[in-house]
Amino acid sequence: MDREPRPVVIVMVESDEDDARLIETNIRRAGVNNEIIMFRNGGSAVDQLVDTKVGGRESADAGRLFLVDLDLSDMSGLDLLASIRTNHATRHSPVILMAAAGEEGENQRRPDLGAHVFVSKPLSEENFAQAIRDLGLVMTVIQAPETD
Amino acid sequence: MDREPRPVVIVMVESDEDDARLIETNIRRAGVNNEIIMFRNGGSAVDQLVDTKVGGRESADAGRLFLVDLDLSDMSGLDLLASIRTNHATRHSPVILMAAAGEEGENQRRPDLGAHVFVSKPLSEENFAQAIRDLGLVMTVIQAPETD
Repeated sequence: MDREPRPVVIVMVESDEDDARLIETNIRRAGVNNEIIMFRNGGSAVDQLVDTKVGGRESADAGRLFLVDLDLSDMSGLDLLASIRTNHATRHSPVILMAAAGEEGENQRRPDLGAHVFVSKPLSEENFAQAIRDLGLVMTVIQAPETD
Repeated sequence: MDREPRPVVIVMVESDEDDARLIETNIRRAGVNNEIIMFRNGGSAVDQLVDTKVGGRESADAGRLFLVDLDLSDMSGLDLLASIRTNHATRHSPVILMAAAGEEGENQRRPDLGAHVFVSKPLSEENFAQAIRDLGLVMTVIQAPETD
């Protein structure tokens, strides 16, 4: 493969502040250093979808990985998933839906809504790695760029 | 940071074939897709250190992460570590030393031998991620490059 691998920006949409902090901690504990952009509710995330920049980069350049709680304060995570799929810049973005125990069963199969997986809350290092694999993404160990 | 993150090549030196396979499996289970080059003993790894290419790339360009069993069939992993440190191309490479339970205690402190950490065998997803962090390396979730 000739192209440089491209780090994705992780877009987390989680209404519970404690959960958001725990998820971020577990992602870092997994050794993952991708940029994380946080939204507290689905509406603000949808507003951002029409923005042309994510993390200071043009959206056309920025791969995004969405990490969405199924039970947001203002909408269902599945509704947000549907919005992600109708937005030009994100329609192919992988999505991890986080569901409380027992909540995910009825929602496992939505092939119409593109590449997404369900993980049980709380997101752990292990089920994060599993979700990455299931979505066809990969993790790469990198050398931090040298500072000049 | 302006420079592109650079994936490292993982150089595994492990004399036990079953262990080598398990380690590779656990690295892949952690979602990590870096190229892995395997050596069965310390001597062949040392021979390779003087080679100018690793994984088809010039060594000057290729960051390497060594994963070395402490109890190799032909030498101690610490002796291999010393060789890695005296080789120009690898003297700054991070090294993970894998030790059987009880074997690592007396070897924890070797500040003279550069950046290295000990992990208990078998290498698991969790202690691999921990070692990556302890070595100041990071993992990045990437989008697989599109095929043209």
